[in-house]
Amino acid sequence: MHERELLALLRRVQIGDATAEEAAAQLNPEPFVSLGYATVDTQRKARQGVQEVIYGASKTPEQILGICQAMTKRGGHNILVTRMSPQAAALVSNVLPLNYHELSKIGIVVPQAVEQRGEIAVVAAGTSDLPVAEEAAITAETLGNRVNRIYDVGVAGIHRLLARIDELNRARVMIAVAGMEGALASVVGGLVSSPVIAVPTSVGYGANFGGLSALLSMLNSCAAGVSVVNIDNGFGAAFQASRINQMEGISD
Amino acid sequence: MHERELLALLRRVQIGDATAEEAAAQLNPEPFVSLGYATVDTQRKARQGVQEVIYGASKTPEQILGICQAMTKRGGHNILVTRMSPQAAALVSNVLPLNYHELSKIGIVVPQAVEQRGEIAVVAAGTSDLPVAEEAAITAETLGNRVNRIYDVGVAGIHRLLARIDELNRARVMIAVAGMEGALASVVGGLVSSPVIAVPTSVGYGANFGGLSALLSMLNSCAAGVSVVNIDNGFGAAFQASRINQMEGISD
Amino acid sequence: MHERELLALLRRVQIGDATAEEAAAQLNPEPFVSLGYATVDTQRKARQGVQEVIYGASKTPEQILGICQAMTKRGGHNILVTRMSPQAAALVSNVLPLNYHELSKIGIVVPQAVEQRGEIAVVAAGTSDLPVAEEAAITAETLGNRVNRIYDVGVAGIHRLLARIDELNRARVMIAVAGMEGALASVVGGLVSSPVIAVPTSVGYGANFGGLSALLSMLNSCAAGVSVVNIDNGFGAAFQASRINQMEGISD
Amino acid sequence: MHERELLALLRRVQIGDATAEEAAAQLNPEPFVSLGYATVDTQRKARQGVQEVIYGASKTPEQILGICQAMTKRGGHNILVTRMSPQAAALVSNVLPLNYHELSKIGIVVPQAVEQRGEIAVVAAGTSDLPVAEEAAITAETLGNRVNRIYDVGVAGIHRLLARIDELNRARVMIAVAGMEGALASVVGGLVSSPVIAVPTSVGYGANFGGLSALLSMLNSCAAGVSVVNIDNGFGAAFQASRINQMEGISD
Amino acid sequence: MHERELLALLRRVQIGDATAEEAAAQLNPEPFVSLGYATVDTQRKARQGVQEVIYGASKTPEQILGICQAMTKRGGHNILVTRMSPQAAALVSNVLPLNYHELSKIGIVVPQAVEQRGEIAVVAAGTSDLPVAEEAAITAETLGNRVNRIYDVGVAGIHRLLARIDELNRARVMIAVAGMEGALASVVGGLVSSPVIAVPTSVGYGANFGGLSALLSMLNSCAAGVSVVNIDNGFGAAFQASRINQMEGISD
Amino acid sequence: MHERELLALLRRVQIGDATAEEAAAQLNPEPFVSLGYATVDTQRKARQGVQEVIYGASKTPEQILGICQAMTKRGGHNILVTRMSPQAAALVSNVLPLNYHELSKIGIVVPQAVEQRGEIAVVAAGTSDLPVAEEAAITAETLGNRVNRIYDVGVAGIHRLLARIDELNRARVMIAVAGMEGALASVVGGLVSSPVIAVPTSVGYGANFGGLSALLSMLNSCAAGVSVVNIDNGFGAAFQASRINQMEGISD
Amino acid sequence: MHERELLALLRRVQIGDATAEEAAAQLNPEPFVSLGYATVDTQRKARQGVQEVIYGASKTPEQILGICQAMTKRGGHNILVTRMSPQAAALVSNVLPLNYHELSKIGIVVPQAVEQRGEIAVVAAGTSDLPVAEEAAITAETLGNRVNRIYDVGVAGIHRLLARIDELNRARVMIAVAGMEGALASVVGGLVSSPVIAVPTSVGYGANFGGLSALLSMLNSCAAGVSVVNIDNGFGAAFQASRINQMEGISD
Amino acid sequence: MHERELLALLRRVQIGDATAEEAAAQLNPEPFVSLGYATVDTQRKARQGVQEVIYGASKTPEQILGICQAMTKRGGHNILVTRMSPQAAALVSNVLPLNYHELSKIGIVVPQAVEQRGEIAVVAAGTSDLPVAEEAAITAETLGNRVNRIYDVGVAGIHRLLARIDELNRARVMIAVAGMEGALASVVGGLVSSPVIAVPTSVGYGANFGGLSALLSMLNSCAAGVSVVNIDNGFGAAFQASRINQMEGISD
Repeated sequence: MHERELLALLRRVQIGDATAEEAAAQLNPEPFVSLGYATVDTQRKARQGVQEVIYGASKTPEQILGICQAMTKRGGHNILVTRMSPQAAALVSNVLPLNYHELSKIGIVVPQAVEQRGEIAVVAAGTSDLPVAEEAAITAETLGNRVNRIYDVGVAGIHRLLARIDELNRARVMIAVAGMEGALASVVGGLVSSPVIAVPTSVGYGANFGGLSALLSMLNSCAAGVSVVNIDNGFGAAFQASRINQMEGISD
Repeated sequence: MHERELLALLRRVQIGDATAEEAAAQLNPEPFVSLGYATVDTQRKARQGVQEVIYGASKTPEQILGICQAMTKRGGHNILVTRMSPQAAALVSNVLPLNYHELSKIGIVVPQAVEQRGEIAVVAAGTSDLPVAEEAAITAETLGNRVNRIYDVGVAGIHRLLARIDELNRARVMIAVAGMEGALASVVGGLVSSPVIAVPTSVGYGANFGGLSALLSMLNSCAAGVSVVNIDNGFGAAFQASRINQMEGISD
Repeated sequence: MHERELLALLRRVQIGDATAEEAAAQLNPEPFVSLGYATVDTQRKARQGVQEVIYGASKTPEQILGICQAMTKRGGHNILVTRMSPQAAALVSNVLPLNYHELSKIGIVVPQAVEQRGEIAVVAAGTSDLPVAEEAAITAETLGNRVNRIYDVGVAGIHRLLARIDELNRARVMIAVAGMEGALASVVGGLVSSPVIAVPTSVGYGANFGGLSALLSMLNSCAAGVSVVNIDNGFGAAFQASRINQMEGISD
Repeated sequence: MHERELLALLRRVQIGDATAEEAAAQLNPEPFVSLGYATVDTQRKARQGVQEVIYGASKTPEQILGICQAMTKRGGHNILVTRMSPQAAALVSNVLPLNYHELSKIGIVVPQAVEQRGEIAVVAAGTSDLPVAEEAAITAETLGNRVNRIYDVGVAGIHRLLARIDELNRARVMIAVAGMEGALASVVGGLVSSPVIAVPTSVGYGANFGGLSALLSMLNSCAAGVSVVNIDNGFGAAFQASRINQMEGISD
Repeated sequence: MHERELLALLRRVQIGDATAEEAAAQLNPEPFVSLGYATVDTQRKARQGVQEVIYGASKTPEQILGICQAMTKRGGHNILVTRMSPQAAALVSNVLPLNYHELSKIGIVVPQAVEQRGEIAVVAAGTSDLPVAEEAAITAETLGNRVNRIYDVGVAGIHRLLARIDELNRARVMIAVAGMEGALASVVGGLVSSPVIAVPTSVGYGANFGGLSALLSMLNSCAAGVSVVNIDNGFGAAFQASRINQMEGISD
Repeated sequence: MHERELLALLRRVQIGDATAEEAAAQLNPEPFVSLGYATVDTQRKARQGVQEVIYGASKTPEQILGICQAMTKRGGHNILVTRMSPQAAALVSNVLPLNYHELSKIGIVVPQAVEQRGEIAVVAAGTSDLPVAEEAAITAETLGNRVNRIYDVGVAGIHRLLARIDELNRARVMIAVAGMEGALASVVGGLVSSPVIAVPTSVGYGANFGGLSALLSMLNSCAAGVSVVNIDNGFGAAFQASRINQMEGISD
Repeated sequence: MHERELLALLRRVQIGDATAEEAAAQLNPEPFVSLGYATVDTQRKARQGVQEVIYGASKTPEQILGICQAMTKRGGHNILVTRMSPQAAALVSNVLPLNYHELSKIGIVVPQAVEQRGEIAVVAAGTSDLPVAEEAAITAETLGNRVNRIYDVGVAGIHRLLARIDELNRARVMIAVAGMEGALASVVGGLVSSPVIAVPTSVGYGANFGGLSALLSMLNSCAAGVSVVNIDNGFGAAFQASRINQMEGISD
Repeated sequence: MHERELLALLRRVQIGDATAEEAAAQLNPEPFVSLGYATVDTQRKARQGVQEVIYGASKTPEQILGICQAMTKRGGHNILVTRMSPQAAALVSNVLPLNYHELSKIGIVVPQAVEQRGEIAVVAAGTSDLPVAEEAAITAETLGNRVNRIYDVGVAGIHRLLARIDELNRARVMIAVAGMEGALASVVGGLVSSPVIAVPTSVGYGANFGGLSALLSMLNSCAAGVSVVNIDNGFGAAFQASRINQMEGISD
C-alpha cells in the first residue's frame, strides 16, 4: 500500500468513513481469501497499485457477487467488473451500490469519486467501436485518469483526425480503438510523441475474422511507439495507459 | 483485334516491318497453339485486349523461351514475363531481344516503344516495397499507360503523402502498394475520387505472416473504392489499372 | 463539388426544389459535423464524388437516425445505409422517407430518382448469393449506374454463362458474386476485356470457412483483370464499379 | 493375389522368367518383412491389388534401397518411389534397374512393360503444374492405365478446354490438376459425367498459402462428382483413379 | 439422355404415366430455364447423368418450391433437396409429394421407386456422425445404388470394424464418415481394394475447429486410394460414389 | 477383466447384488452389441480397464438412453456421459438412476460408491475455468481416484499458487486447467516432479480464438513433463491422469 | 536430491570416482549459476528429479559448451542436448566426452551407463518418422528406462501393428509417433490400457501444414487415454513417459 | 526540435563540433528529402522526439547507405538501422562510422555517447531469445535509457525470476522477451506495478508456428498492464519503453 493511500485510509477511520474492522481488513497481511470457486488476491493493490479486477464473462452472477463481497469486506470500493451481464448487474445492485454501463457492459461496485489526473486520449475510428472505447474510457476514469474522448475519426476522412491534432498532442497517453483495417493506430502513432496503446475491435465482417485484421494491422504498425492489447480489450488498454499516465517523472 | 491494331499490322507489312507470314499468323483464326507443355492462347488479345502474359515461376527457362517463340512467330512483341529468373532471362536474351528488370524480376521480350496515355499513380509505402511497385509500374508502362511513381510515403509520416495530394488527384487510377499493416490503401482511398487498386506486399516479419496482415487490412478498408489483388501481385494490379485507365468515356 | 453538381444544386434552388438553407448547408465549408458518437464527414462528396455511406452494423437505430438527420439537414438524399436491421429501418422510416430492401438489408433514405448511365453487369453464381448480389445491384443503381442482373450462372453448368456472353461484353464493368469455390470470377475474367470486381460470399459450409475459400480463390485468379473486395461486401464492389463505370474517357 | 496374377507368375516360372525362389517369395504367407527401420507390407498387393509404394521424402537413400531390395527379393517389379531425390536415384540405379523422371521426382524400380487399359485423362491448368501432373500420369501408366494428357487448359482461356471436350468425355476417369484458384476442377466437373479426382497444387504465391487456395476451392466445388486429394499429391490421385478405371462393370 | 432412359420415358408416355407435354419438356433442347432468381440447368442430366440437385441452405422456401416446380414441369422426379429446412419442407409438401428426412435434412421431391444396383458401404465412426452418414446413404439410394450401413465402428474399438471386414470387401465403393480425428478413413483405406470417398464431419469440439481436424487427417491419409469431399458433405460423397459404383466394366 | 474385478463380480452374485444374468452378460465374450445407431464396445473394460464412456454431444436423448440401457443390461454402472444436455439428463433419469452435474454437464448413470485411491490435483487458473475443471474432477473421482481441487490460482497472482506447493507435491498426477494464455501449465510443470496433464479451456475472447491461445501455449511449454489434451477436454485429462495414478509400481 | 542418489554420490567419493569438490558442487545449495547469457538451474534435479536439459536450437556452439561446463563442474553427467547441430557437437566433443546421434540430433555429454527399468514402447508409423522416434527412444534410455522400438507400423497396413500387440500390452507407457494423419495414436490408444503420449511429426507435405494435421488429429483422438506433446517433440514425450514409467506403485 | 536539443546544436556550432551548414540542414523546415527510392522524414524528431529509424530488411546496402547519408547531412547521429545484413554493415562502415552488433543485426551509424536515464529492465526467458533481447537493449540504450539485462529466467525454473524481484521492482518499465509459450510476460505482469511491454519471439518449433504461440499467449495475458508488439520486434518494444521511461512526471 502506497503511503498516500495508507494515510487516506487512516483519515477515513478518524472521520468515521471506515470502521476499524474495515481498515484492519485492508491492512491485513493475508495475501488472499479462498471462496472455493475463487481465490481473491488481496495483495494485488499493494503489489500492483490496483486491486483485482473481476472478469465477468463465464462467471455466474452469484460468483461475481461473492467476490465483490469478499473485496468490500476488506474496504474495497470502485471495484471494476468487466463483461458484466445485465443479470449479474441486477443481482449485485440488489446488495451493493453499483454503477452499470450497459453499452460497454462494465460495472463499478461501491462507486466513489476519484480524483482524475493527467490526460489519456481515447481515439476511436467509428461509431461502431464505441462499446470498446467506452470500456476503456470508463476504466481509465475509475482508475483516476482524466479522459478525452475523440470519436469517429477514422482514416477514411483523415481531416477529421487532423483537425484535432492539438488534443492528441496534449494527452500524455493515447488509446487508439479501431476495427476493420485498424489503420488508425498507425496514423496516430505517426503524429504524436506519446505512447500509443492500440485496441483492435471485432467490428467488421468477412475477412475481418473476428478482429484478426485489425489485430495484425496494429501489430505490424509501421509507426514505432505502438503496442497492442487483445481484441476488444478496452479494459486492458486503459489499465496499461493508466500505469503510464500516472508515472512519476524521470529523475536521472 | 481492334481496328487500330489491324491497320497498324497491315502498315507494318506495307513497309516491310513484318512479313506476310507473320501477319498471317496474327490474323490466323486458330485460337491456340499446342506446345505439349503449354497451350498458348492466341486469341487472348482479341478477347481481352492484351495478349497472354507468361507467369515465369515454376517454368523452366526452356519452357519460357518456347512460349515466347510461339508468340513472336505470330507477331507478338512486348511480351511480359513476370517472376522471371536471371537464368531464364539469360537463356531468352540469347535468342530474342529482352529488356530485363532485375529488382522486379520482370522481362519484356521483343520490346518496342509504346505510346503512354492517361495516368496511373503507383504509390508505395516504403523503400522495401519497391520490387512490387516496380513490377506494377513497368507492367503499366508496357501496357501503354503513363505512370507516376510516388514512393516511400507510408502513413508513419503522413505529411509526406499529403504533400503530394495534387499528384494523387491528377491520376485516373491509383495503385497503392504496402506491406506491414497496409494502412496506405485506406488513407489514399479516403483522399481521392478515383479507383484504388491495393497491392499487399509480403514485406515485414512475424505477425505479418507473409503478407496476410496487409492483405486483411486492405480487404477490410473502411474507405470505399478500394479493391485488392493478391499479395505481391504488382502485375495484376497494373493490368486491372490499365483496363480502367484506358476506358472509353461513359456516353449516357 | 463537381461543377455539374454545383449547377444542378443552384438550379434546384431556382425552381424551389431546395431551399437556400439546404443549399447553403451543402456549400458550407465545415468539413464535418460532430454528434458525439459520430463525426459526419460532410466534405466526402466534394472529395470523393459520393457522400458518406452509413455502415449499419453495430450501430443503434438511434445513432443511425441521428446521422441520417445530420446529413439530410445539409441537403443529403439517397443516403445509403448498409446492413440495416429491420429495427433501424422501422425507426428511420417513422421520421424520414426510406426505401428498405429486406433481402439485402440495405436502406435508401430520402430516395430520389437518379439518372442511370453506362452499364454494370452483376453476375451471381447461385440463388443463395442473391442477398449480396442485390446489395451490389441496388447500390450501383442508387449511385447512378444502369445495372444488368445475370443470376445463377455458376460454373457447374457453364453453358448458362456462355449463353449470355453478349450481355457480358456489353457491360463496362463486371461484378462477379460467388460463394463456395468462387470460380465464377476467373471464368468471367477470362471471357471479357472490361474490369471485373469480384465479391466472395460466405455461402457454403465446412471448408468454406465463412467465405475464405471463395476469397482465396478470387485473389489467386489465373485471369488477369480481377480485383477483389471483402467477403459479402456487395456495397464495396458496387462503389468501386460505379467509380469505374462513370469515368471520363481517356484523352491521350 | 488375384487369380490372373497367380497364373501369370506361374507361367513366368515355366518360361524361366522368374526362379522358383522368387515365386516362392511372392507366394509366401508372411505378411511383412522387418528391416528395423521399416516393416515392408508384403501382403498389400493381395489386400489392395497394388504393392506398397515408397514415399521417398525424409528417407535416406540407403533406406530406400533397402526397402526396394526387400521387395525385389519377393519378385517385386515396377516399384514406385515418389518424391525420390536425385541422390537416392543415383544410389538405387547402381544396384537395381531404375526408370527415373526428374521433373516429377518419381522412380520406377525394376521397370517392366505393363498393359494399359481403359483411359484416364490428366487435365492440368498450367505449364507450372506439370511436375504434379506428370507424377499422376506416370503413376497411372505404371499401374496399368491408358493416360491422355491434356495440359495448360486453365479457365482463363476456357475455349482451350472446350475445344477438347470429346477427349474429356472419352475418358473413364478425370484427374484435374490446378494451382492458384483451382477453378479447373469445378469447370471440368460440370462438363463430364465421369468421376473427377482433383489435385490442388502449390503453384502460386501470396494468398495461395502453399496450395491452400486451390485446396479449399476444390473442396467447395459447386459441381458434384469431384473429390480431392492432398496438395501436390499426383500419386494419390492416380492411385484412386486407377482403382476406379479398372473396376469391373456393375452386374445388377 | 442415355438410351435406356429415353426408352423408359417413351414407355411412360405409352402407358400414360407421363403426358406428351412432360415428355416434350424433357426432350426439349433448351439448356436452361430462367426464373430470375435461378437459372435451372435442364441439360444436366444429359451432360452428367443426373439432374440438378438443389442446395437448400440460404434459399427461401419459395425459391426452393419454384425450382422444384420448374423441374417437375419437365418431368423431373426424385429431385434431391439437401440442407432443407423444416419450413421449406412444409411449404413444398403442400404442393408436391415430398419424402423428408429430418435427421439429415434431405428431401426427395416427387419420390419414385428406383432400382438399386451394385453396392456402396457407408461406414460411420460414431453415432454422432449419423446425420451426415444418412445424407450420404439416402442420396446414394435415390441415385439407384444399393447401400449397406456400417455405423459406430470408430477406431477406438477397432475390433468392431474388423468384425465386418467381409461386408467392407463386398462393397464396390466405400464412403467413410468420421469427425474428431477422422482416422477411420485411413484404416478402411488400408483394408480394402475399392475406392474410398472420405467425408470429414464437424462432430467434435475445441481443436476440431469445425471439422478441420478430420479434414486434414483425411487429406493426409497414409493409405492410398482415399479421396475427400467437403466437411459434412454426405451428398457429395454419395454422388461421387454413385458415379463410380455405376461404371461400366473396363473393356481393354 | 482384471482378476480383482472378476472376484468382485462373483461376490456381488453371491450376495445378491447382481443376478446371474447380469454377471453372465458381463462375462459374455461378445465384443459388442449392435443397436443400429450404435455399436456398443462391451470389451473395452477388459481391453482398456474402463468401460466405454458416452460422448453426449450430437446424440439424441433417446440414443443416449439406449446406449446406457445396453450397458446396464450387462451390469454396467457408474457409466459416464459427458456433454450431456439437461434434456438428455431428464429423459435418462426417468428410467435409470442418474447423478447429473449441471455446471460441467456430466452425468453418472447407475452411480455407485467407488473406492478412491492415490491423489490427483486438479489445478485451475480462474473461476471461469470451473466447468472444465469440475468435468475433470468428477471423472477422476468416478474412476476411483482421490481428487484435490486447487482453484483460481492463475499466474497473475503467483503467490496464490506458491502458497499451495505442498499440496502440489503431494499429488501423484497434476491436471492443469487454464484458458487465456494458459501459462499455469508451464509454471506448475516447473514446480513439480510428477506428470502434468494440461487442459486448455476456451475461456477468453478475441485473440483467444476459442481456446487456441491456451492450446498452443501448453504445447510449447518450456517446462518438460507436460502433455496436453483437447480444448475443454476435462474428461480426457482425467482419464489419462487416472491411468497414471493407478499404475502399479515399477518393479525393475 | 533423492536419498538413493545422495548415497550413490557419496560412494563415488569413497571410491575416488568423484572428487570432494565435485560432490560439494552437487550438494551446494545455490539454486542457479549465472553465465550472463544463461542462468543454469542447478536445483532442477532436486525439484523435478531430472537435471536441466539443453535445448540446442538457436544457441551458439560456445553457449552450449559453456552451459555443459557449468553443469559438469557440479558433477553433471548424461547431460542431454536436443537439436544439437553437428557444429556444436564438434566443438563440445573437443572438450567433453560426447555421445552424438546424428539422425536425431541429440547429444549426451559425459555419458555414463544408466540402469534401465520398466518399459516404454516407442511406436512409429513410418520410416520417415525415425528422427523423432529416435529422439524419444534415446532420451528415454538416458533417463533410465528400458525401451522397445516398434517402427513402421502405420495404419495403412494395420496387421503389422496387430501382430505386435503383445509387445504393446507389455509396456508400461506408450509413445506413439506419427506424421501425416497421425491415426496411429488413436488406434494404439484403443488397443491398450496404459497411458499413450502422442507425438505428431512434421512428416508429410501440402495440407500437412508442417505437422498441423497430425497434431489436430491426435488432440481430437476418439480414444481416451491419449495426451499430446508439440510437433516433433520426441524429447518431451520421452520425458513425460519416463516420469510415468518410473512412478512408485499406488499405495491406497 | 526540443529546446534542450536546439541549445545543444548551437553550442556544437560554437565550439566547431558542427558546421553552420550541418546546423542549417537540421533547422531547415523542409519536412522530407526525396531520394527517389526513399522519402526521408526529416521532421520526425520534431514530431515524435526521435529521428526516423531505418528498417534494414528488403533494402539494398546502397539504399541503406543513401538514407544514412541524407540523415547525416542534416546532422543526424546515432542513427539506428535494424535487421542490417553484414553486407550492408560492411558497405556503410566504409563510408560512415558504424557500431554494428552481429547477434542482433542492429547498427548505430555515427555513434555518439548518450546520457542514460531512468531504468528499463529487459527480461528474457531463455538464451535462445538473446538476439531479440539484445535488439531491445541496444535500442533502449541508444535512445538514452539505462538498461538492466535479466536473462534466462523462464518460468520452468521460476525461482530464478523470483530471486531478482528487487531488480524488477526498481525498473520504471519492463520489456519481457519470450518465445515458446511466452508465459514470462504474464508472470512478470503479475509481479510488478510498472508497465510491461511484451515481445514474443519466434524461438521454438512445431506448434510454435513462427512465434504465433507466444504472441497469442501474451495478447491473452491474464495479468493486466501488459501490451504487446510484433514477433521478434525488440526494437519496437524498446522504442515504446523509452517513450514511457522518459515521461515527465504527472502534475495533476
